[in-house]
Amino acid sequence: MLISFEGIDGSGKSTQIALLEEYLIEKGLNVCVYREPGGVQISEKIRDLLLNSKVDIHPVSEMLLFSAARAQLVAEKVIPDLKAGKVVILDRFYDSTTAYQGYGRGNLSLNYIHDINKIASLNCEPDITIYLKLTWEESKLRTAHKQEDRMEKAGEEFFNRVIQGFDYLANKHSRFAVIDADSSVNKIHQEIIKNVEVLL
Amino acid sequence: MLISFEGIDGSGKSTQIALLEEYLIEKGLNVCVYREPGGVQISEKIRDLLLNSKVDIHPVSEMLLFSAARAQLVAEKVIPDLKAGKVVILDRFYDSTTAYQGYGRGNLSLNYIHDINKIASLNCEPDITIYLKLTWEESKLRTAHKQEDRMEKAGEEFFNRVIQGFDYLANKHSRFAVIDADSSVNKIHQEIIKNVEVLL
Repeated sequence: MLISFEGIDGSGKSTQIALLEEYLIEKGLNVCVYREPGGVQISEKIRDLLLNSKVDIHPVSEMLLFSAARAQLVAEKVIPDLKAGKVVILDRFYDSTTAYQGYGRGNLSLNYIHDINKIASLNCEPDITIYLKLTWEESKLRTAHKQEDRMEKAGEEFFNRVIQGFDYLANKHSRFAVIDADSSVNKIHQEIIKNVEVLL
Repeated sequence: MLISFEGIDGSGKSTQIALLEEYLIEKGLNVCVYREPGGVQISEKIRDLLLNSKVDIHPVSEMLLFSAARAQLVAEKVIPDLKAGKVVILDRFYDSTTAYQGYGRGNLSLNYIHDINKIASLNCEPDITIYLKLTWEESKLRTAHKQEDRMEKAGEEFFNRVIQGFDYLANKHSRFAVIDADSSVNKIHQEIIKNVEVLL
């Protein structure tokens, strides 16, 4: 089973992934968690380029770099893990490319992005996508103490378009479980379990 | 004017590009030369990943990395240079992706590669592509003294498919000038000038 987590920064993905991982392990499942971009050596190097670069990265180049990191992670880890019967949890997957590079940047064709997402994910599709929905204002409050990386510096209009993108995808794909992230950690965790249990 | 040079390693691209650059400068033209992957900061970092990586890179990831490097170079340099009226010479361009990642690797759809080439080149097309045609055997002799990078270690069958790819492209696109690279440096240079002069 492949579970992806989506949502803007500060929506609680890391916290909820850790709780879900623990829950699934206690149920006796073999669980692997990977973050995007990253998770394997080459993809972590691409992550460093994407998040810590001091120079501007063109939107097309940015999208292709995220996609290159994804293809490597899927080939090296996700596919072998799924074949071995493990549960794979992804901290972001290709829906983030649609939301951030498609809706956020706003100057790339969504059709192109759709095609590249298919290529870069080597046709892997999540069985369920947990979308932790949060407003930009709330996200700002929660991440105020953190140093912003290159993506996080993009500003309010950008992030509101990203949220629009996630909302659009959630409407379109039945694999999405939309969860209000402006709630208590435990309530959100219970909500996630309810959605995942259906698939187990 | 945009001039791309293609051909396998050892075909004399660097030598001939230097001679053509000199020739065009003497004619009073403003000439810029860039190598692929590379040419700008981010793309040189991607180049390092692609050529010096010790771990295997999945073919899809490899293709996306070459394409990401290309998009950044085209956006930062090629398009502004062309707009400023300069002659841009590229040491490899998207035909290399078709030949190496498409034909060479052999497991990626050529249609996908065609689409990604269009996206990554931001619709820039060379006015002329100088294809220095050489056999793998001759290339091997010429590059025997060099340390091989990750791409160059791919072996004879791979390179024969790459050559097939270049031959196919040369047949298909009228912008290709096919030049026998198994000849003297000066003879090849004259042949190139003849082809470029028509466009000046």
